[in-house]
Amino acid sequence: MTDAFPYASRMSGMRASEIRELLKLLDRPEVISFAGGIPDPALFPAEAARAAYAEALADPKAALQYGVSEGYGPLREWIAAQMTRDGVPAAPENILVTAGSQQGLDFLAKALLSPGDTVLSEYPTYLGALQAFRAYEPRYDRLRFDGGNRTPASYLGRAARAGGAVKALYLVPDFANPTGLSLGLQARRAALALAEELGAVVVEDAAYRALRFSGAALPSLQALDAEARGGLDASRVVCLGSFSKTVAPGMRVGWVCGPRALIARLTLINQASALHVSTINQIAMFKIVEQGISPLVAAARPHYRRKRDALLDALERYAPALARTAPEGGLFSWVTLPEGTDAAALLERSLVEVGVAFVPGAAFHPDGSGADTLRLSYSLPTTERIEEGIWRLAKVI
Amino acid sequence: MTDAFPYASRMSGMRASEIRELLKLLDRPEVISFAGGIPDPALFPAEAARAAYAEALADPKAALQYGVSEGYGPLREWIAAQMTRDGVPAAPENILVTAGSQQGLDFLAKALLSPGDTVLSEYPTYLGALQAFRAYEPRYDRLRFDGGNRTPASYLGRAARAGGAVKALYLVPDFANPTGLSLGLQARRAALALAEELGAVVVEDAAYRALRFSGAALPSLQALDAEARGGLDASRVVCLGSFSKTVAPGMRVGWVCGPRALIARLTLINQASALHVSTINQIAMFKIVEQGISPLVAAARPHYRRKRDALLDALERYAPALARTAPEGGLFSWVTLPEGTDAAALLERSLVEVGVAFVPGAAFHPDGSGADTLRLSYSLPTTERIEEGIWRLAKVI
Repeated sequence: MTDAFPYASRMSGMRASEIRELLKLLDRPEVISFAGGIPDPALFPAEAARAAYAEALADPKAALQYGVSEGYGPLREWIAAQMTRDGVPAAPENILVTAGSQQGLDFLAKALLSPGDTVLSEYPTYLGALQAFRAYEPRYDRLRFDGGNRTPASYLGRAARAGGAVKALYLVPDFANPTGLSLGLQARRAALALAEELGAVVVEDAAYRALRFSGAALPSLQALDAEARGGLDASRVVCLGSFSKTVAPGMRVGWVCGPRALIARLTLINQASALHVSTINQIAMFKIVEQGISPLVAAARPHYRRKRDALLDALERYAPALARTAPEGGLFSWVTLPEGTDAAALLERSLVEVGVAFVPGAAFHPDGSGADTLRLSYSLPTTERIEEGIWRLAKVI
Repeated sequence: MTDAFPYASRMSGMRASEIRELLKLLDRPEVISFAGGIPDPALFPAEAARAAYAEALADPKAALQYGVSEGYGPLREWIAAQMTRDGVPAAPENILVTAGSQQGLDFLAKALLSPGDTVLSEYPTYLGALQAFRAYEPRYDRLRFDGGNRTPASYLGRAARAGGAVKALYLVPDFANPTGLSLGLQARRAALALAEELGAVVVEDAAYRALRFSGAALPSLQALDAEARGGLDASRVVCLGSFSKTVAPGMRVGWVCGPRALIARLTLINQASALHVSTINQIAMFKIVEQGISPLVAAARPHYRRKRDALLDALERYAPALARTAPEGGLFSWVTLPEGTDAAALLERSLVEVGVAFVPGAAFHPDGSGADTLRLSYSLPTTERIEEGIWRLAKVI
């Protein structure tokens, strides 16, 4: 799960030539970027990775050979145990190893969606999911957890009139990209009840779930549903996991956890697409997490909390009138600009006049709304640069 | 590009329970397998890989971070130069790095095919291509280079009656999987002329092209077409390349080479699917091939030639009446059984009675024909085991 500035700009209706000019600005060292949703490389476990790849290559005939499409056995077992610790009683047969959770989104869309089918999501939602689903030509309808959800009959009726069915609810319940917000327990239960009435699959994107740095953890949608139904194989929730935010994204290792019948279907899709995730990367990832993922997560949490604090403090100091979210984890805060402000136009001015980048919010809205919103990622800049960047940004807002 | 025995068996109509029983047999050490189309791990460059991963991890912030969807710049440059040496004047912008050529097949099908469209291929053809294309619901029509090709109007007429268009010709011109056969120069020119008349893209699968061990090399379809049209960007050929057979498949690195407009489309598809190929694997692969891919290829050629010789010698000795191909490269020979023999039934007897595995040929035919054919891969067994295996197999035929 990432999203690139150029892609977001394309979606917000800028011309290619404009984007190219802006991108040149982004490369300048004085530009402070809140745009990329990528983890801080200062957290990468360099020593553990060196040891893991060296150990994997002690058996080159295994590490460099083809593997099975469902994934490397010991890694699937480790992931299943990890899911179980997080409240989802998973066996290895409930796990498909994917090239990051993004690939899981593509495979799920291929398995679930036909053109004209409906996906329910919050507006805004994760840009990479919209992009992964696009090839399968769904339409979107809006989920709201502020009391504004419509009746199941209304969702079903609109989906049928569009020539398809409600096939999936897509949700990022923990520290969502782009808003940083989490669903409360009541909203989680409401989402599951709605999915049940609609007969739809719930796609739970848990890419940031491990990165909670304040507040109390809530059970995942999959944990709630598996408990209610007496097991994961009877659940309608499929969960996307990732090592990209807790270990390293460049290895491209994530997973899908779901009922084994669905996992078997997704495994065939994987076999027809990329065959399997790189063998050596799966073995190396297993060796890294087997040594202990807890210290990595334990280091990441205060690291990102400090950066979030720097961002919120700076917003409070330099732009106190701006509405923004206060995330309890993850990498993002979401800002709503004064009414009538266009975030795409602001980005251009911000880059040219003060050298600050962010992602305009319209890109995250399936219906193209949200022109007056923007996403700030605090993961990459230092706390000093965060303060400096918000001070500069406030000058152009 | 690989294909697993269980998958082939499934396609040849065996029951799941039968397959499970047969698979148990395959795990027995006394079974000699000509089934898997995978490279011999004895050829893997273990030392070079150890050095390459260690060097890549000397800069962990780059090797473990997200990368761009088009691929790692220096690797794209190296591949472009390699394509140019092979007669295709390619720039880095003509290259997309993929997770093996299998992923290139999936992305191309996503870009080119709608349900009901027609793909032309030889019968038999590569199983993994049929599987990659399946999700996009094409129909197939048969290409023949023995003088039996139909008129362009006939191909177009049937495609239109099926409700689509002829979108692609899929060809493995060098040492095809599964037959081991290559297209002659005249057939290559005929394929390009036909594609021109049909207005279709030519998908050239070159996964085995580097593994020629006898006979003279022929220009690739892409080289011929780029020359005729004055450049690659004007060509209708897109070529799939792979390091799986020359370096190692477990790293999952291959490429698509084509006109830059198509590469740009495929790059967006990659961005929506897996984002990009593992950064560390791309960097490590670049370091391995930059050190020299020629010694690896130079070692592989005589290695596989010796095994092919052992296979053909054994077939001549123990089953002289069987029709089989004599490949000039690659990993496969193709056998036609006495008329009326069912290769799937033979496989069952062969495994149970003499402990020999192969892939029944029907799996490679889009129309399910070819029941009396089978594929033998000589890549994995030693020359002694090859002779022993063919001796055993001859007893049950």
